Amino acid sequence: MALVVQKFGGTSVADPDRMREVADHVARTRRRGDEVVLVVSAMGKETDELLHLASQVSRAPAGREMDMLITAGERKATALVSMALHDLGVAADSFTGSQAGFLTDTNHMNAKILEVRPDRLRQALNGGRVPVVGGSQGVSTERNVTFFGRGGSDTTAVALAHALGGVCELYTDVSGVFTTDPRVVPLARKLARVSFDEMLELCACGCPKPAMRAVEYARTHKVPLHVRSAFTWEPGTWIDEEDPMMEQAMISGVVGDASEAKITLTNLPDRPGIAGRLFRGLAARDVNVDMIVQNVSEGGATDISFTLPKDDLPAGREVSDALAAEIGADRVTSDDGIGRVSLVGAGMKSHPGVAATVFETLAANDINIEMISTSAIRISCIVREADLDRAVIVLHSAFGLDASLAGGTR
Amino acid sequence: MALVVQKFGGTSVADPDRMREVADHVARTRRRGDEVVLVVSAMGKETDELLHLASQVSRAPAGREMDMLITAGERKATALVSMALHDLGVAADSFTGSQAGFLTDTNHMNAKILEVRPDRLRQALNGGRVPVVGGSQGVSTERNVTFFGRGGSDTTAVALAHALGGVCELYTDVSGVFTTDPRVVPLARKLARVSFDEMLELCACGCPKPAMRAVEYARTHKVPLHVRSAFTWEPGTWIDEEDPMMEQAMISGVVGDASEAKITLTNLPDRPGIAGRLFRGLAARDVNVDMIVQNVSEGGATDISFTLPKDDLPAGREVSDALAAEIGADRVTSDDGIGRVSLVGAGMKSHPGVAATVFETLAANDINIEMISTSAIRISCIVREADLDRAVIVLHSAFGLDASLAGGTR
Repeated sequence: MALVVQKFGGTSVADPDRMREVADHVARTRRRGDEVVLVVSAMGKETDELLHLASQVSRAPAGREMDMLITAGERKATALVSMALHDLGVAADSFTGSQAGFLTDTNHMNAKILEVRPDRLRQALNGGRVPVVGGSQGVSTERNVTFFGRGGSDTTAVALAHALGGVCELYTDVSGVFTTDPRVVPLARKLARVSFDEMLELCACGCPKPAMRAVEYARTHKVPLHVRSAFTWEPGTWIDEEDPMMEQAMISGVVGDASEAKITLTNLPDRPGIAGRLFRGLAARDVNVDMIVQNVSEGGATDISFTLPKDDLPAGREVSDALAAEIGADRVTSDDGIGRVSLVGAGMKSHPGVAATVFETLAANDINIEMISTSAIRISCIVREADLDRAVIVLHSAFGLDASLAGGTR
Repeated sequence: MALVVQKFGGTSVADPDRMREVADHVARTRRRGDEVVLVVSAMGKETDELLHLASQVSRAPAGREMDMLITAGERKATALVSMALHDLGVAADSFTGSQAGFLTDTNHMNAKILEVRPDRLRQALNGGRVPVVGGSQGVSTERNVTFFGRGGSDTTAVALAHALGGVCELYTDVSGVFTTDPRVVPLARKLARVSFDEMLELCACGCPKPAMRAVEYARTHKVPLHVRSAFTWEPGTWIDEEDPMMEQAMISGVVGDASEAKITLTNLPDRPGIAGRLFRGLAARDVNVDMIVQNVSEGGATDISFTLPKDDLPAGREVSDALAAEIGADRVTSDDGIGRVSLVGAGMKSHPGVAATVFETLAANDINIEMISTSAIRISCIVREADLDRAVIVLHSAFGLDASLAGGTR
């Protein structure tokens, strides 16, 4: 008998019918002999609706009140799913994040877990009951309700699997993690296994699920994750530690991301402190800078380009314009027509030719590279947004990731 | 500077516009120099919607989960109203029932308050902030979320006014307590003042607002209530202790109620224990018996009639049919076409002719009386449901309650 933490997202609990399906899934898991802790998100689009309500009553809603408001969504879902379980004869109890023992800092809308004390969940489990826990929520050291942010339910599930000593299953509307977006590349393959490091890079490059923060938590605490479909029983993708005994696949996935923009400051004096001044200024405005590239200096002058989320472009542009004179830049330009294509694979560490193949493949397809950034297990290239999907397709094929016509997963 | 607990019902916080109006009302109260504690219900029809959702996932939802579900409604409202207050520059904090210090028994869907420890509200008040408290909710001695039942927000407000030492204002969609239902009798008058005892009788006779339980709490703890309109600033009705120095009005109100049915058991042996056996059986099935009348015995046999809510009629009929043979009844009949008209007034204690006037007035208008029940300050008559509105109108007029054409309240 194992303990399984099963997390179902908003789509999986969007209406009473879906909730009954989740309850049926849990009942079957229990019949197989496993103990279950269930984590649920708010129903369907409810979080968006609550945010919209808030925007109608206040221009700048306070974080404490936003958290009180938004967490009502998961609270509803836990109660309804518990009822659906009862109707199948499964004893179950709903728990808010606070009742489940999630103690957090006081950083509203983005609270961090300080400690998990799941005493009440253990009690329920010992009594043969299924605890149904509201995702993405806890109580702060100041005794206020806190919200972990969007996608925080994955983190709740991982943290509970760690605290209670169990396996973590993240149920989503896709059947696992794919070598690339199947909507762009129909020949994309589901990965049977991917390492924490690779998954983090895939998340950072724009892979939408699972939530990056949950993967980080799982990696730190060595909690294996199983990402799988809420609609079928087929195995999904296991996210786990790298197995040194196992030959690493060279490339695990190709990710395209069109959500960023680029700012360039040209002809800066090439002396210490310039970049620091610029990026300190951006950080002070909460601009999330992603890639940073500084070109080779010629004659004492240099250019700096960086990418940032399109939403942050106005603030990023403002900071850059304001600092341009002070740091001696000639000109500031911005560009929101870019796309980033990234290759991720633990195996590339021992295959030095990967970067060359990337550049050659893109060149052979007339796709121009505007920026390059690499880590030990990732290569990212900025291209025109219009070329992005094509870049993903040709790289996916060039690295042998396309599914054979016979199908099958790696 | 006084402390005022202001309670706004679901209609008053039904949408963002109404919430802003409530916030404006609170801001004005504060500018007058008063401290305010706000109690809010769930938005508009939200409680009904949550109940409907529950009925879709479960045939018989568990009380613990119903309470978790339903209290999410008030939670949302407290957060949104707090945000609306912030936008007017009023410092405010939302509080769940648990955070506000409502400790209750474990009787879900109908929890009773055991203790109120409003430490966090006092702290907020001392910091110059407005606490916005979710109505009708608390936390049980088993640390589960509890709901006081429909209309429980009034009780929350009264309990806070008592615990914090303040005045209690209940804002509704009517402008106070009337001598009768203005929809039935356009000449109904608003009462400036009514005693706790009279208000309790009015509630018991079908007057929908304020909630009877809140009036009981206020009466026990001597907390004056002010029932007033959420849409105007005009004074409403004060509910307070009877003032022995003041001449009591003979009749404070006339209430019609068509929500009950009647069961009659005929030709019972007139001996001790029969009625006890019957009403114990009804109580065991949670049938809420209201009026009970036993006719004068003739030749050792008697008839018993009682009224009960129409919803309880099937269960009441079942119990009566099952016991009929055992207790020796000839026949069981039921009737759901009845109406009850009630007169309430503290002054009738010293005016012995009231009952006679009631019977004469109804007879003069060809309205037949089927059952009569009285207390020190109330007379109720069961009539045909078809005659009910007419009975209210003629009694309202006969006791001089009709507003003069010049208008004005008592």
